[in-house]
Order: sequence, then C-alpha cells, then structure tokens
Amino acid sequence: MKICVLPGDGIGPEITAEAVRVLKALDLKLELEEAQLGGAAVDATGVPYPEATQKLARAADAVLLGAVGGPKWDTLPREQRPERGLLGIRKDLSLFANLRPAILYPELANASTLKAEVVSGLDILIVRELTGDIYFGQPRGIEMREVEGRQQRVGWNTMIYAEYEIRRILKVAFEAAMKRGRKLCSVDKMNVLETTQLWRDIADEMGKDYPEVELSHMLVDNAAMQLVRAPKQFDVMVTGNMFGDILSDEASMLTGSIGMLPSASLDANNKGLYEPSHGSAPDIAGKGVANPLATILSAAMMLRYTFDQEEAAARIETAVKKVLAQGLRTGDIYEPGTTKVGTREMGDAVLAAL
Amino acid sequence: MKICVLPGDGIGPEITAEAVRVLKALDLKLELEEAQLGGAAVDATGVPYPEATQKLARAADAVLLGAVGGPKWDTLPREQRPERGLLGIRKDLSLFANLRPAILYPELANASTLKAEVVSGLDILIVRELTGDIYFGQPRGIEMREVEGRQQRVGWNTMIYAEYEIRRILKVAFEAAMKRGRKLCSVDKMNVLETTQLWRDIADEMGKDYPEVELSHMLVDNAAMQLVRAPKQFDVMVTGNMFGDILSDEASMLTGSIGMLPSASLDANNKGLYEPSHGSAPDIAGKGVANPLATILSAAMMLRYTFDQEEAAARIETAVKKVLAQGLRTGDIYEPGTTKVGTREMGDAVLAAL
Ligand SMILES: CC(C)[C@H](C(=O)O)[C@@H](O)C(=O)O
Ligand SMILES: CC(C)[C@H](C(=O)O)[C@@H](O)C(=O)O
Repeated sequence: MKICVLPGDGIGPEITAEAVRVLKALDLKLELEEAQLGGAAVDATGVPYPEATQKLARAADAVLLGAVGGPKWDTLPREQRPERGLLGIRKDLSLFANLRPAILYPELANASTLKAEVVSGLDILIVRELTGDIYFGQPRGIEMREVEGRQQRVGWNTMIYAEYEIRRILKVAFEAAMKRGRKLCSVDKMNVLETTQLWRDIADEMGKDYPEVELSHMLVDNAAMQLVRAPKQFDVMVTGNMFGDILSDEASMLTGSIGMLPSASLDANNKGLYEPSHGSAPDIAGKGVANPLATILSAAMMLRYTFDQEEAAARIETAVKKVLAQGLRTGDIYEPGTTKVGTREMGDAVLAAL
Repeated sequence: MKICVLPGDGIGPEITAEAVRVLKALDLKLELEEAQLGGAAVDATGVPYPEATQKLARAADAVLLGAVGGPKWDTLPREQRPERGLLGIRKDLSLFANLRPAILYPELANASTLKAEVVSGLDILIVRELTGDIYFGQPRGIEMREVEGRQQRVGWNTMIYAEYEIRRILKVAFEAAMKRGRKLCSVDKMNVLETTQLWRDIADEMGKDYPEVELSHMLVDNAAMQLVRAPKQFDVMVTGNMFGDILSDEASMLTGSIGMLPSASLDANNKGLYEPSHGSAPDIAGKGVANPLATILSAAMMLRYTFDQEEAAARIETAVKKVLAQGLRTGDIYEPGTTKVGTREMGDAVLAAL
C-alpha cells in the first residue's frame, strides 16, 4: 500500500502532517513517500508537476494532497502556475471521477448560512467528471483575428466529451447511487449545449441498466437554484468538469464548514488522489490554526476507495465525530461555547479518539 | 414608444396581461402590439421565433416578454424548442447586456432559505453577457468519431469571446457600478480557460478608465460559494453568458422570492427586452395564481432603461412596495399573517397603488 504524499502550498504541509500521523497510527502496512506539487514544486524545480513527483505518483497506489496555489505564483506564466500541477496530475493519472461529499455534521449546523431546517441532515454526493470537458478540450487559446472589420484579440476554448468519457463517469455515479439513496440527478445544459445533450441521451440509455436508481435530469442554472432552495432533495448529483467545479463548491458552502469536507479523485482501477475540498488558505499558512479534519477525512476516503479498508476508514470517521462531540473546534468552525484548538491539537485529539 | 408584447407560454399570458394594464394606466403615449414567441409560436406557426414576431420586435423600441417553454415542447427537435425562440430574439436584436437585479424586499425576508442576517438588505446587480460565449460559439455539434480506437458519439461546443464583445459588456457593468455602490466584481475562470483570461486582462485594462470603481476578480467556483457565504459583499457582478446563467439564477434564489425579480436585456442603444427572472411555471399556468410582480417590475425597468422615464418607473416600483406593505401576497410569497391574492387581484392592487 504505497502512498505518495504531496503537502503542496499554504496550509497544505500542516494539514497533511496531521493526516499522515493518523494514517501511521493505524496498524496498516502503509509506505509513505513525500514529493512536491504546485507552488512548492515551482520554487524547487521551476515546474508545478516535476518528473520526480510524476514517478512517485505513478508508482503509488494512492496520493494524499494538501492544497496548491497562492498569490505568490499568480503572476507566473500559465504553464508554471500551481494549478497546472493539479490539472497535470489529474490528467496524468486519469483520475476522471471526482467524488465530493457535502455533509452537514449536526454539531456544526450553526456554521451554515442557511436556515437549520433547510440543511439539517444534508448529505449529498457530487460526482464530477475531472479529466475532460472544457478543462482540457482543444483547440484553445488567445490570438489576434479580424472580427467585425477590426483586428482584435479573441479567446476561445472547446467543451468536448466523447461517449466513453460520459459512460465511465455515469457508471461511477449510478453505482454510488446504488450504495446510497438510489437517487441520481444528472446536471446538464441540454437546451443550449450539444455536448450536454449527448450527456443526457447517454444518461437515459444507461438508466435502463439501473432500474433501481431513480434518474432525473436538471439544467445547471436550475441546479444552482435548487441547491439553495431545497438541497435535501438531492442524493447523488453527476455532472461534467466545468459545471461540477461550480456546483460542488456551491454545495460545499451550504454546510458552512468546508474545512470538514474531503474529496476523492479516482481512476478506473480505484487508484486515487485524495484532498480536502478547501484551498491552500495562504492567509493562515504556517500559523498552526488550519483545520486538518478535511484532510484526515480524505485519508479515510483513501482507505475506503483505494485500499478497501472499510473498517479503518470508519475508525477515522468515528474519531472525527468524537472530537466534534467533545467540542473541539479549529478557528474556521469555532463558535462560543466550544473549545478552540490549533491544527496539531486537533490532530492529537483525533489520534486519541482512534 | 412602441412596445412589442410577447406573452409566451405557461403563466406568461396571465402575468404580461397585468404588466400591460399597469403600463396602460400611466399617462404615456405607448403603442402596444402583441406577437408570439416560444411554444405558443411553435403551435401556431411551427417555429419558435416566427417572421411576424421578428418584424414587430425589430420595429419596436422595447419588448415585454412573459416566459417561454414547457414540457409539451421538450421532445421537439432542437430547432423547434421554445428556448430557441428566446435565444433567437436575443441574438437577432443584439441584446448583449442582461441586467439581473437580486434584491431582497424587507417584507419578504422570511422567504429566503438563508439566515436573515446573511441576506437582509441584499441588493446585487448581475450583469450577464447574453449574445456570445458558448451559447452561440461555432463549431458545435454531435457526431461519430473514432476515439480511443472505437467509433463513438462525440459532443462539442465552443466558448469564444472577441475583445469588442468583452469591452461592451464590461462598459455596461462599469457604468452600472458608477451609478450604484462603485464596486464591480468580474467573474471568470482564468486559471483554466483562456477565453476568460482574456476577459480578465481586458477588465484590468478598462479598470484604469474607471478609477472610482473598485474592481475585483473572482473565480466562478469561488463566486458560487461566496454568493452563499456572504452575498452582501457584492454590488455589481459581471460575467459571461454561461457563468452568468448559473450565477444569476443562484443569486435570485438567495432572496427566496424569484417571483419578484425583473430583468432587462439591452442592445447598444438601450433598446431592450424585459422579462421576469422566473420561468413559465407550466404547473400553475391558467390558474390565475401566478405572481405578476416580476413582470410589472420588468415594465418599470423598460420605462427606465429604454424610455428614460425614471419618474414613471419609480411610480411603479413604489406601487409594488406599497402592495407588499399592505400584506398582499400571491401563493409563491405567501406566509401566514398575510393576505393571499391571485394574479388579477395583485394587478388590481398595483393599479390602485399607482
Ligand atoms: C485550481 C482549479 C484548477 C481547480 C479546478 O477548477 O478544477 C479547483 O477549483 C478544484 O475544483 O479542484
Ligand atoms: C431558456 C434558456 C436558454 C435561458 C438561458 O440559458 O439563457 C434561460 O435559462 C435564461 O437564463 O434566460
């Protein structure tokens, strides 16, 4: 069980350190090796996904990532920006299935900006396609063209999906729905985009193979509304890379505690990259106050999806619930009446609760 | 002052009827003529934006639209679906600037699913580009191709913006910001999409001409989050057609009373199409219970933007506030302790309040 650990940038190193401690505390034969991704890699090697990292990541069974990015690298040329590292490793490892749970922990119900009755018990799984769509579609670029009689800059990108890409992500979503509430909502913009008309057609075709799953379709603009209006109507949602980027972040924020939300990005053989749903939070980096729980819960997802260690995964999740019940909170989820702790103390508490 | 009235489908005829009564009650020399758009037009002529409608709409100074669409027409071939009529008229009349206010009326604060303190006083203007982007970009389609060694269906669309399109919508947004809180947030996905990198570059260039406007940039995924987390941070938001479709609907829903929200779609000479932000609600069509206020407020926007009749516009808006203060509510915004009224009664009340 080989794990490649990529601390990344900002709070990445602090939060992955806690997740690594938790992994090591389990009696599993895990081999952990560290490498660089994102801004850290740019600083060290000039590129955001260096060859050494590629080798380690390819050889590993799973990757644990902190977070990448920060203002420091925002002005670099496109190919050197930290997020190219993230997009690079996703594509390189064919991690096409991004699983993003949006779960509201009862203890953190107050953290949401939504009314308690709208979000209490919220438990959505968003399945986002991660290696196709307009993220990677060719052609793309910025160039001078003659438009309306004048030379001017034009920017363009290509949204594109082949049938096999749509089928494999829908399969993941249908199967996830089978293990949960058996409701799948596929999100598209079929009334405008041919790409997503194809998506809807294929979803309907595949739906026949999953008669137990209640398949519905929703336009992306309506989905963005329904997540605010009545998010508990959803069980599993599946959509393309671009819409998934937007909707999964919106859904995370419904909980008000994005510092609690893990994610998994899987290939066809359950090799996966696991990372918190939140970003690198450069403003609090190095201060020891970041919330490590999303990263710790990402490690739990790793044990479940890649290593089939359901018991160990559940142990971690139970430990996290325990520390919440004990009233321990990092700053992002703190409220009066609870105990504010730092990154390391939170890690200690999870270890103790294991 | 020629107005082309397009009742459209579903509740469209009922709600435009009330807005027309309000317009006629003002002492303005308005010429109103009715035509068909959407499903109604398909039923009558076979196409969603028939020639007769094109002629009237082109000759008019402004268009008042109810809503288009309904399940009845969903299975028709693409070119005959009601929304093609809407996209057709937008493009035909070059209505590139879509203005979508998201305002929370104090009397309706409870309607929101968000906590009162998060949304009270909410007043955002979303400026969405409406005639470009992936909505109209070529090439696009679905075809058989050999991919990964197999013949299969592939769907694709093209996101594209030329500099002049970006400049003209940003100009509308900067100028709207000057008349409001002087804060403009431009939304893009520049870390992934070249099209929106160009958008950001041009926004930065133009920002120099509007030193009084505080210009900021936000990635679309973050914008979807921030609208839920802290929507009052925004004054004017500007973005492309696709992202604007999603974010403006999300923002509308923050108020919980989308039945109150008007919209304007303007060309370069302030000719405009005005329509409620909500849809055609086929489930309640013909029952006389739909909320006409968004359409009535759209008529007010028409008087302001196209006819420069600020006083008449304000009169309508004041009348609407008055009926809310009187406690009158259609079903969509009803709560115990208020008086439930139908579409026609609500129109009567606005007329009385004028
Ligand atoms: C950093 C960025 C390229 C990335 C994405 O858009 O996929 C991020 O927003 C995410 O969702 O993981
Ligand atoms: C009906 C549809 C084509 C349209 C759009 O996507 O623009 C609608 O959602 C809107 O926002 O007016």
